[in-house]
Amino acid sequence: MTDRMNGKGRGVRRFLPILDWGRDYRFSTLADDLLAAVIVTIMLVPQSLAYAMLAGLPPQVGLYASILPLVAYAIFGTSRTLAVGPVAVISLMTAAAVGQLALTTVEGAIAASAALAALSGLMLMAMGVLRLGFLANFLSHPVIAGFITASGLLIAVSQLRHILGIAGGGHTLPEMLVSLSGNLGQTNLPTLKLGLATLGFLFAARSRLNPLLRRLGLPARAADIATKVAPIVAVVATIAAAAGLGLADAGVRIVGEIPSGLPPFGLPTFDPGLWLQLAGAALLLSVIGFVESVSVAQTLAAKRRERIDPDQELVGLGASNVASAVSGGFPVTGGFARSVVNFDAGARTPAAGAFTAGGIALGTVFLTPWLFYLPQATLAATIIVAVLGLVDLGVLKRTWNYSKADFAAVAVTIALTLGLGVEAGVVAGVAVSLALFLYRTSRPHMAVVGLVPGTQHFRNILRHDVRTSPRLLSLRVDESLYFANARYLEDRLYDMVAARPELEHVVLMCPAVNEIDASALESLEAINEQLKTIGVAFHLSEVKGPVMDQLKRTDFLDHLSGQIFLSHYQAIAALDPSLLDRRIAPGSAASDDPSQADDPA
Amino acid sequence: MTDRMNGKGRGVRRFLPILDWGRDYRFSTLADDLLAAVIVTIMLVPQSLAYAMLAGLPPQVGLYASILPLVAYAIFGTSRTLAVGPVAVISLMTAAAVGQLALTTVEGAIAASAALAALSGLMLMAMGVLRLGFLANFLSHPVIAGFITASGLLIAVSQLRHILGIAGGGHTLPEMLVSLSGNLGQTNLPTLKLGLATLGFLFAARSRLNPLLRRLGLPARAADIATKVAPIVAVVATIAAAAGLGLADAGVRIVGEIPSGLPPFGLPTFDPGLWLQLAGAALLLSVIGFVESVSVAQTLAAKRRERIDPDQELVGLGASNVASAVSGGFPVTGGFARSVVNFDAGARTPAAGAFTAGGIALGTVFLTPWLFYLPQATLAATIIVAVLGLVDLGVLKRTWNYSKADFAAVAVTIALTLGLGVEAGVVAGVAVSLALFLYRTSRPHMAVVGLVPGTQHFRNILRHDVRTSPRLLSLRVDESLYFANARYLEDRLYDMVAARPELEHVVLMCPAVNEIDASALESLEAINEQLKTIGVAFHLSEVKGPVMDQLKRTDFLDHLSGQIFLSHYQAIAALDPSLLDRRIAPGSAASDDPSQADDPA
Repeated sequence: MTDRMNGKGRGVRRFLPILDWGRDYRFSTLADDLLAAVIVTIMLVPQSLAYAMLAGLPPQVGLYASILPLVAYAIFGTSRTLAVGPVAVISLMTAAAVGQLALTTVEGAIAASAALAALSGLMLMAMGVLRLGFLANFLSHPVIAGFITASGLLIAVSQLRHILGIAGGGHTLPEMLVSLSGNLGQTNLPTLKLGLATLGFLFAARSRLNPLLRRLGLPARAADIATKVAPIVAVVATIAAAAGLGLADAGVRIVGEIPSGLPPFGLPTFDPGLWLQLAGAALLLSVIGFVESVSVAQTLAAKRRERIDPDQELVGLGASNVASAVSGGFPVTGGFARSVVNFDAGARTPAAGAFTAGGIALGTVFLTPWLFYLPQATLAATIIVAVLGLVDLGVLKRTWNYSKADFAAVAVTIALTLGLGVEAGVVAGVAVSLALFLYRTSRPHMAVVGLVPGTQHFRNILRHDVRTSPRLLSLRVDESLYFANARYLEDRLYDMVAARPELEHVVLMCPAVNEIDASALESLEAINEQLKTIGVAFHLSEVKGPVMDQLKRTDFLDHLSGQIFLSHYQAIAALDPSLLDRRIAPGSAASDDPSQADDPA
Repeated sequence: MTDRMNGKGRGVRRFLPILDWGRDYRFSTLADDLLAAVIVTIMLVPQSLAYAMLAGLPPQVGLYASILPLVAYAIFGTSRTLAVGPVAVISLMTAAAVGQLALTTVEGAIAASAALAALSGLMLMAMGVLRLGFLANFLSHPVIAGFITASGLLIAVSQLRHILGIAGGGHTLPEMLVSLSGNLGQTNLPTLKLGLATLGFLFAARSRLNPLLRRLGLPARAADIATKVAPIVAVVATIAAAAGLGLADAGVRIVGEIPSGLPPFGLPTFDPGLWLQLAGAALLLSVIGFVESVSVAQTLAAKRRERIDPDQELVGLGASNVASAVSGGFPVTGGFARSVVNFDAGARTPAAGAFTAGGIALGTVFLTPWLFYLPQATLAATIIVAVLGLVDLGVLKRTWNYSKADFAAVAVTIALTLGLGVEAGVVAGVAVSLALFLYRTSRPHMAVVGLVPGTQHFRNILRHDVRTSPRLLSLRVDESLYFANARYLEDRLYDMVAARPELEHVVLMCPAVNEIDASALESLEAINEQLKTIGVAFHLSEVKGPVMDQLKRTDFLDHLSGQIFLSHYQAIAALDPSLLDRRIAPGSAASDDPSQADDPA
């Protein structure tokens, strides 16, 4: 770990984390990594097939996307336990992006998905090299939570048609519901029975199996892992049922022929028109995938006091997507459930990911003939159970209770993702959360403060019984001063001054002012000049060190009609000593805590 | 004044400030207002003609825009001394907006300018009624300064062709320079001589006349006013010269026939296609005009301890523009120079503006025949001298010294306004300044702090010789915690924790945290959970009252592995008393100023 702590800024090794952990690779580590790889492989096979279907692609594309991308991440990624591959939300975004191209052939969709992976991979790598990982921070948690919840709902609804055995389509909730209700009459009963049985089994495995296994004496971690591989049981059982009962002839749609063998290698088609059409979707998909992946990686790394490098994670995920693009795959990112399984199963290094890739590669060579009879309804049930775990409508209530601004961001994101699609949802969510943040900082909390009798503390005159003077106005502003709130400060201050005809001094109390930009400086200069013309002196108190350094580089302090006071108490003592409580000698308020001087409560 | 202080929220009177000041109107006020009106009228006549020419419109349009708009502002505006009418920057923006329509007739340009005024007026009124005046605050001072400087340069260069007596055009600096240099061979010598003489006179009047008049014993204010009406002298003199010397026959372009009589009333043509094309330009023009006007109004109001209501100012300026649109005018706003003259000349109420309107109306009836011989070069010289006063390239150096972010906003605004035009310049400037603000708040200043020996104060360990413990990490964050910096805090904190194997306690010191949004709350919860898994307790200190109120509405405090301390000193005393200096009894640091506890210097 300490080894990794020094991992920054060492040239080529910054970009090749494998050089760090590969050096010390031991046999005991190998055994741990191999065991984890076997378990993750078993979990990843049905997921890969299902998410390919969700993306509107043939099942083998999902398997291909679970081979080379894992090897690429093992070389370039910084998380020791992140498991990359196809994931639900990214597959949905792929379906939406490719769907808007209105392609008519499966080959066209495969090529477009590969192009999307290539574009997304190159964007992620460029962002990593340029250290632009911080851009992802502008996706707020409420926007992500709203987006994931809405996507989960969209995905679940999109899979209902496979459970019902009917045709359908659409990329928004209204489109899907119209399509579903229109085709409800064609429901295939055998498909519905199989689908409901699989759904029931998977839900039961999720909610009942784990406690059962633990009651039977299995350790908690092993029970968790066993629960997560339940889908493979469903896959095997429904393949047997479909093959044995001839369900395909009864109208149950099966996966059918999957080409066996390793992925086809080759550069994705470079069509400038196509890439341009996909660029916006690729950017959103890259950012969403990165945010999801890095938060999983960070959570797991912190549990072992390891660290990840978000900018290098961009490079790792970018390389994975490029690898996916050149090996017949589609966009990938780090998945939550599989990474947790990988971690719990004891993976120690990214080599576990490479071994998983080997397992999937063996699967594509030897397993694919066995998947011929796999019902699509089984895959749909797997997806529905997985994504309903993502849906968390409670976020609406929680954010409503905590902050109306955050609630607005969640609500807009959910409504627009469901109503207009994934891209509109994300973009609107980010726009709303940024706009509300800017609005809040543009109207900062300000308080006229007075002296709490018998102390050196100042509190809001509206909330506390404090001493004030008509000759002196003490105004505390609880925000950095910048262009969006500079004029607001002027407006408010002029209003207050106009209402106080006896005023002689204004003291602006700045303990929470972390910055004063050029606009705010001009406002302070304007305030100083305006107050000067009416004979009122303008003072500042409790200005922070860096802000003071910046003010010293200007001539503001030369023109200032008043003074700068280190503490507000010193300002009052100098400007209007009549306010001081003479029973208390200055400095005797010793045991009072200094923080309360700027406590707005 | 106290009367106006109570002006808010009184129903219809909020929207009709005239009901406030009109009630107490007296004869002495009338005399003051009339004198100011005479002086402003003399100043406004040449300006109105010149700015109409700058906007690419016939001269009478400028006069029309100086009649009804002033009456409308007198009724709806809240500033007692603001003088509205055509101004340079808004005229330039009008020319650019109408120019992009590629109209071929003067009638078309007049109709489009009136539509622009109508659209802008309606937008301003809507913003006022919806109280959206704060939106203008997102135009930072550097962006405005850069925009005004670049516009001044553009305007001055655009008028050079009238001084040279050649044809020309273009809405960006490169276009204008190419057009000028291509036509330089057609320079008309009599025009050039007249233009240079007028320029010389106006520059001399500006720089020499004022000191001269004061040396002759004129009071400072009277000398200022006399200097500002110098253009009328130039107008009279050059009319006489052009008429007497037959300059029109020598190729000097004169204003020619101006229709005399009152403005033509009528609704502007409502053409949805035209309005849609002009909407973007109208919005920018409205915001720029409002910002310029309100800052003038605010400066003048503050000098007399009066106040203006920015939202009602929007209504006032909107009404002025609608009035301009229905009376043959073009977009108007409050002008700086003429408002200062109005103020200095002693205007007491908006009635002065109405009287000025009367003066201009008399001018349009009786004066226009006398303007037949007015050379266009005279108007161009008036414009150049006026706008060169707006150019302030020093803003580049000042912002460079003060803050690189502000410099970037100025530089981008100037470069794009000159190179791509006024609209691109403003939009890019706002985008850059918002992006840089968001970037700065996304990477807040953080400091690991230690105890200053012998005090209760904590300072940055990198800057000061302070006491720390390997068991305890004290981290102070100097910004509100919100989505854009929440993950940054996590990253930085996990890095610090990973580097400290003996760590038992982390205390986050929050004196400058004015807000914790839902994303930041989730990050704090994640930090708490992660630290818990590795056996490190997470504490907060010096949390502000409103932030604490909000945290109490969640279950964060129930799960918090550590405690909330009122002061950071209390936290240290509780968690690692070995750090305390035993020679100092707690509480004896009495005379130390409390603000220094959160001083990052």
